[in-house]
Amino acid sequence: MAFSERVARLKSSLIREILAAAQRPEVMSFAGGLPAEPMLPRVEWREMPASMGQYGMSEGEPALREVIAAEARALGVPCEASQVLIVSGSQQTLDLASKLFIDPGTEVLLEAPTYLAALQAFQLFGAECIGVPQQADGPELSALRQRLERHKPAFAYLIPTFQNPSGTRYSEAKRDAVAALLDEFGVTLIEDEPYRELVFDEAPATPIVSRLKQASWIYTGTVSKTLLPGLRVGYLIATPDLFPYLLRLKQSADLHTNRIGQWQALQWLGSEQYRGHLAELRDFYRLRRDAMQAALLEHFADLAEWQLPQGGLFFWLTLRQPLDTRTLLAPALERHVAFMPGEPFFIEPDRHPGHLRLNFSHVAPERLGEGLKRLAEVIRQAQAGKAG
Amino acid sequence: MAFSERVARLKSSLIREILAAAQRPEVMSFAGGLPAEPMLPRVEWREMPASMGQYGMSEGEPALREVIAAEARALGVPCEASQVLIVSGSQQTLDLASKLFIDPGTEVLLEAPTYLAALQAFQLFGAECIGVPQQADGPELSALRQRLERHKPAFAYLIPTFQNPSGTRYSEAKRDAVAALLDEFGVTLIEDEPYRELVFDEAPATPIVSRLKQASWIYTGTVSKTLLPGLRVGYLIATPDLFPYLLRLKQSADLHTNRIGQWQALQWLGSEQYRGHLAELRDFYRLRRDAMQAALLEHFADLAEWQLPQGGLFFWLTLRQPLDTRTLLAPALERHVAFMPGEPFFIEPDRHPGHLRLNFSHVAPERLGEGLKRLAEVIRQAQAGKAG
Repeated sequence: MAFSERVARLKSSLIREILAAAQRPEVMSFAGGLPAEPMLPRVEWREMPASMGQYGMSEGEPALREVIAAEARALGVPCEASQVLIVSGSQQTLDLASKLFIDPGTEVLLEAPTYLAALQAFQLFGAECIGVPQQADGPELSALRQRLERHKPAFAYLIPTFQNPSGTRYSEAKRDAVAALLDEFGVTLIEDEPYRELVFDEAPATPIVSRLKQASWIYTGTVSKTLLPGLRVGYLIATPDLFPYLLRLKQSADLHTNRIGQWQALQWLGSEQYRGHLAELRDFYRLRRDAMQAALLEHFADLAEWQLPQGGLFFWLTLRQPLDTRTLLAPALERHVAFMPGEPFFIEPDRHPGHLRLNFSHVAPERLGEGLKRLAEVIRQAQAGKAG
Repeated sequence: MAFSERVARLKSSLIREILAAAQRPEVMSFAGGLPAEPMLPRVEWREMPASMGQYGMSEGEPALREVIAAEARALGVPCEASQVLIVSGSQQTLDLASKLFIDPGTEVLLEAPTYLAALQAFQLFGAECIGVPQQADGPELSALRQRLERHKPAFAYLIPTFQNPSGTRYSEAKRDAVAALLDEFGVTLIEDEPYRELVFDEAPATPIVSRLKQASWIYTGTVSKTLLPGLRVGYLIATPDLFPYLLRLKQSADLHTNRIGQWQALQWLGSEQYRGHLAELRDFYRLRRDAMQAALLEHFADLAEWQLPQGGLFFWLTLRQPLDTRTLLAPALERHVAFMPGEPFFIEPDRHPGHLRLNFSHVAPERLGEGLKRLAEVIRQAQAGKAG
């Protein structure tokens, strides 16, 4: 069978395997990024017009595009509804952007670590990925400048607000500095914001795209983390030089995003009901984050270092005594605990051992302690084995 | 702005422009392939479990995969549910297959004419498209053999049942012959069947994939033409050598298909209610086809030749006096009539003037005559202008 050249770059998905194992009811999973089931809102369908069953526009539902543009403007993003493209979940933004920009060998700039599925999507199309180390307040600026001086990336892909996996929220100063650098070097920005609304400790965080003066940009978001991921409704907002291409690529990919999910999203976005739901969601997840912090302090204080995430869904642990955390998966699953090894979030996994990504939204607080205790034991045993 | 090489192959979409013009209420549109609004079934959502709001499996809902496999087996397609992948409309099958097979220069084999959006999807990825002329009962077999001897296509993409745009249903003999040739040359078959259930005059038409003994295959279908296109729910069934790659490509494209549409499709597929709906749909469209045939005989008998389509949604007209039908679009739209020029359905549009694709499902029978009369006048004027 003669497959395309890109198939050789199709990674065997470690995540798929972990998530499949994590489905077993006896497993306590810190692996995924799933919303907590009790916080999925009850939704109504009675009022949906029958016309939503017909084919729709590739751009998406006009009313939904208007609401998304209005919400983005309120955040400081200068845009019109005509720049909004509704996508089948924000993962599709990565696919469309890959098609727009990436040939084999095309350079793209990413945070190190970065979102695993973005890395895989870009690599599938043959991207040469260049990483910029993350600090507690955003990217290391001297490294960013150096990369921009030495390379010609087609775009920079950044997750500035509660970054996946590190949880980092870029400071205002770093947001300004990143925007200035991208403007200076004329590099397009793809700003991915699935977690913006899941904020537990407020701080200014105006999107970087709103600070750009010249560079082109794509800003992308989703209702998956705040409403219902099963709807598969996300969006991108793009500068007018990029939009027409993204629209045609969307049409070629799946004609248009499902309209029933778009209609449901429209019932919520921008509404009082949605604001109320978001407030509840933040309170609920803040409690879970705090419970995770307490349990980590009890079981991991001597094993790892971490920052308290001020939003998002994850803790990012750095082991004091690094080891390849992928080797911990099998023994952890034997003890019915799932987590995400940190290595696959880096362009060169083998050069970045010793991180774990732990989700705090999914496991109930009363089971947390037991799960983390077991995970700590697995790590201690591995380290003892390695030492001995 | 440095785009990928493939963007240069991104066609300006004539269809998008025609369909946009056709949206105006005063326009009688024979252009699209839209289901008739009165035939969109009323659907219920009350029983949908809240769990459908959560993330789902990339493969699709297990129960839906089971039903689709059972229906396919009843058609003669040998398969298990594990070979079924739910996709975001069958257009996505074309995107996933392109990613799996096509590098720039990869040869693929298509019917001439073929489905425009398939042609565009394959060309976007850089396919070298090779056409096989269609006859009234399927492809010209000597031409097919000759192409297979001279080329090494990664796959053959065929629409054997009520082909778009020609309306052709392959005969049983041609189905057997095509399967034998693909087996002989070891060429993968992608069999696209959106129109199978829209049959007005019954005849045996077992899928070609069920006749293959060795070649790999992808069989793809959708609920868009029989239930609700707005759900964006289609499926593919693939041989086990292809399935794991298609699954990973699906995950990279959009994680999974929306679950609410999948749930709704599951309420219908394989049910008594669905069988009743299909029977009504066939009766309704058969009346519209017959009305179109009568109006065509009145206004086009001296202008064009055509076959009565035994299923599907389109008449395919061949002008007795060929001209570039794309030049008819503007004058037709001025007279509030939209249609699809035939040229873009061919790999080399300029070498195939003189065809029109006319949809019969959308315009109400009482407006048909007036619309076709105006279109015939536009053609007569163009031919007179050309002659003079």
